Amino acid sequence: MAITVVGSVAFDSIETPAGRRERCLGGAATYFSLAASYFTDVRVIAVVGEDFGTKEEGVFTARNIDMRGIERASGKSFFWEGSYLENLNEAKTHATELNVFGVFEPKIPDAYRDSEFLFLANIDPVLQRRVREAMPQVKLVAGDTMNYWIKDHKPALLEVLKGLDVLLINDTETRMLAQNSNLVQAARSVLGMGPRMLVVKHGEYGATAFHRASKDGVGTKPFRAPALPLEHVVDPTGAGDSFAGGFFGYLASQPELTPATFRRAMFYGSVMGSFTVERFGTERLQELSRREIDERFHLFRELTHLD
Amino acid sequence: MAITVVGSVAFDSIETPAGRRERCLGGAATYFSLAASYFTDVRVIAVVGEDFGTKEEGVFTARNIDMRGIERASGKSFFWEGSYLENLNEAKTHATELNVFGVFEPKIPDAYRDSEFLFLANIDPVLQRRVREAMPQVKLVAGDTMNYWIKDHKPALLEVLKGLDVLLINDTETRMLAQNSNLVQAARSVLGMGPRMLVVKHGEYGATAFHRASKDGVGTKPFRAPALPLEHVVDPTGAGDSFAGGFFGYLASQPELTPATFRRAMFYGSVMGSFTVERFGTERLQELSRREIDERFHLFRELTHLD
Repeated sequence: MAITVVGSVAFDSIETPAGRRERCLGGAATYFSLAASYFTDVRVIAVVGEDFGTKEEGVFTARNIDMRGIERASGKSFFWEGSYLENLNEAKTHATELNVFGVFEPKIPDAYRDSEFLFLANIDPVLQRRVREAMPQVKLVAGDTMNYWIKDHKPALLEVLKGLDVLLINDTETRMLAQNSNLVQAARSVLGMGPRMLVVKHGEYGATAFHRASKDGVGTKPFRAPALPLEHVVDPTGAGDSFAGGFFGYLASQPELTPATFRRAMFYGSVMGSFTVERFGTERLQELSRREIDERFHLFRELTHLD
Repeated sequence: MAITVVGSVAFDSIETPAGRRERCLGGAATYFSLAASYFTDVRVIAVVGEDFGTKEEGVFTARNIDMRGIERASGKSFFWEGSYLENLNEAKTHATELNVFGVFEPKIPDAYRDSEFLFLANIDPVLQRRVREAMPQVKLVAGDTMNYWIKDHKPALLEVLKGLDVLLINDTETRMLAQNSNLVQAARSVLGMGPRMLVVKHGEYGATAFHRASKDGVGTKPFRAPALPLEHVVDPTGAGDSFAGGFFGYLASQPELTPATFRRAMFYGSVMGSFTVERFGTERLQELSRREIDERFHLFRELTHLD
């Protein structure tokens, strides 16, 4: 089933201990779409500027990603510059230029309206909510956010959370959103804000899914997917968005959403994140095969399974 | 098969967000022994002072732990005072008084000499080596160390590593020992120093076992055991030593050491660590049952297993 994703398509300048890249294609919607495209049809809603050319377009079309919802505006695309020189787990931001993204008004092409899955990548919660409300027919809605929206736009964010099935954020964001330093207590508090499921991403330590308690208590136990111990982490940019793409893409590709499907989706999320960090930007995500993905899925299983 | 452990038996004063305890029974050998005692026979080599009374003795005897190697010296026992007020993952040390431990000369009772498993808990590497050399008949030797020995006693520590089958240390210690910030590269470097297996403990994120590459490359893949997301962490003191006790105790209880045995041992290590942090000091470890332990083992399996 098709996924519609709304989020940023951007240019990133990145410095890591492995080197530097200027203005490579980036943005949460880009990483998400590429990762999800190995599992199902993906349709993007975003805005880009005049600097978005045929080369960047080719990255999407090569993966059969529907770009009809990517608006071309006059001006420059969203630009981010950051480095990971001291700590590969946390980016230091040097510049953020919203450019055309600053006046983004998501427009949903009619051809997207039968999408059964919707992903609200990390953007202004006011826009996330607008897209959510314009697509009432979707079967499953997941979303992401970040510390900036949690700190300074909490009321708008809380409105978004009410309409989410799954929220995917990291440890720090979970603790910040719940104002509680214990992860289990924080998760329960976030689940009280709306989502039925919370996926907390732990970076190099994997991710944990927490479920809202059902009346009969069934299926409410947490589930933890590992991350692969990697010998060469070239660039962590986009790992979390790739996790979301693998997770949601796998779900959308399945005939039924059972607890076991969600567990495997957690593993596929981790798998896609592990590929992304092996090269700069979207390089690794552009050239994968489903076979490589499934081989790594089995590596993840071997990494944690007793039998 | 019996385990002999050499290490500290101490008194700890501990403050955490859950409260404060004065002079509770502690020390690496204490936590290790209690955790391992649920799996196999344990024999301790340590030194205590005149403040070690019948109450403390009772903690060991209640678990059938052999205390013939615990020497009574005149003076006070090793004492540590620390807090975890800002960060439950890292202790802040307020006082360390070596007392009788400062002149500790491990003496191995004859009755211990047929032990097939030896654990060298975190003490001066010179003493670790002496005990190792005095027990050449053991089948499997594991050990622990800490940043202090890595920084200031590295030559002595490197001699110990040559005689170890398994080294159990945390992320920071692994990176410090290898002088490499990438965990996989650091692990390989540490495995080059002697041990066949390195278990890196990640605190609330579990632990990863790395194996030295064999000639045919078989069985050399890493294995990761999760930690349980816990709603109430009362006191993290001793979690790492309890991990080691569960890990090594389980190994010693098995008829054969296969790769699957080592994987299950990783899970049992995590299980014992998860119990320890639920109460202050050794309180939780003193009152467990093997049934509770196996129930939690199954929780850990459910937490990470796909099927």
